[in-house]
Amino acid sequence: MKATFQALCKHGYADVTMEKIAAESDKCKSTFHYHYGTKENLMVDFIRFLLEGFEEKMIPDTDDPVDKLNGLIDNMLFGIKDGDTHERFHTALLELRSQAPYNEKYREQITKNDEFIRKTVKEIIEEGIEEGKFREKIDPDRTATIILSAIDGARARQISTDRDVSENVRGALDIIIKNDLMKEGDLDKE
Amino acid sequence: MKATFQALCKHGYADVTMEKIAAESDKCKSTFHYHYGTKENLMVDFIRFLLEGFEEKMIPDTDDPVDKLNGLIDNMLFGIKDGDTHERFHTALLELRSQAPYNEKYREQITKNDEFIRKTVKEIIEEGIEEGKFREKIDPDRTATIILSAIDGARARQISTDRDVSENVRGALDIIIKNDLMKEGDLDKE
Repeated sequence: MKATFQALCKHGYADVTMEKIAAESDKCKSTFHYHYGTKENLMVDFIRFLLEGFEEKMIPDTDDPVDKLNGLIDNMLFGIKDGDTHERFHTALLELRSQAPYNEKYREQITKNDEFIRKTVKEIIEEGIEEGKFREKIDPDRTATIILSAIDGARARQISTDRDVSENVRGALDIIIKNDLMKEGDLDKE
Repeated sequence: MKATFQALCKHGYADVTMEKIAAESDKCKSTFHYHYGTKENLMVDFIRFLLEGFEEKMIPDTDDPVDKLNGLIDNMLFGIKDGDTHERFHTALLELRSQAPYNEKYREQITKNDEFIRKTVKEIIEEGIEEGKFREKIDPDRTATIILSAIDGARARQISTDRDVSENVRGALDIIIKNDLMKEGDLDKE
């Protein structure tokens, strides 16, 4: 999986081959072919592996739902800036996503990842409502969807244009959290 | 340009060739080669052409900034549902976007398109502020960015997963417009 990550960063999705992935590991090409059969199967396993990484690395270790939500948004928006590798990795991910309409297996696994992440954000918002920090009126599912869509859009824009909108999106999400989600938030309003 | 549109919908970006584009028109392949040289040049021209379509078709013909903003969001989110062609077309666009990191010319033109669209939304919001319909406190640029990022993210998710989040994103944007943008909006709050 580490070799797949490195090969994707180096060559991009379209140009990556089993041979190039094997070259990043201490295994030979035939071992990869034996285990996975096709590049497609390996990629599906890799998308599944990314979800484990999401659970381990992206979700902040805190009990406070407000901190957890803000930390997760920061990790998702700015994790990408941890050097050149991350930008290239997200580029390969966008390529993989753009192949999903043509590839049932990719689409299935990407749907699973997206649904898991949406459920995670939804649960953080529900926790916030239960703890009396977020308004009871808000729809956790809809709120999770807008937050994640905005992050996805910001990432795609960062990768495919010369302008980085991450700071702008972070600022806008901050206002949404303070104004619309948090109970005491509307004190800020004019 | 119509032939390019049809060929992209039929074959996707990766598989489209000058020959396949010519086949959708009444011109021969050599005419396309003479005018554009490469598929890359034709695609850059096509991305530019899309921007003209955006100006003509996507921006609602109304003087009211609230109606204009809501209409534009609807067109961008749900225009895609006008049959199978639109979904396939946006799939090709996502492919094109995922190639932008590897292709300076694509990135340049996509940046121009994105900036134009952002400027359009920003100006609608500024009009709303001037007319006293939107709060003076809001940042038009930041608000435009979050709206467009959310729409981009929703489109990418609709294309690459089995779940359509457009309705959810539309609902969330509606709340943002009513609660955060519009002056009388906060009357709705609990």
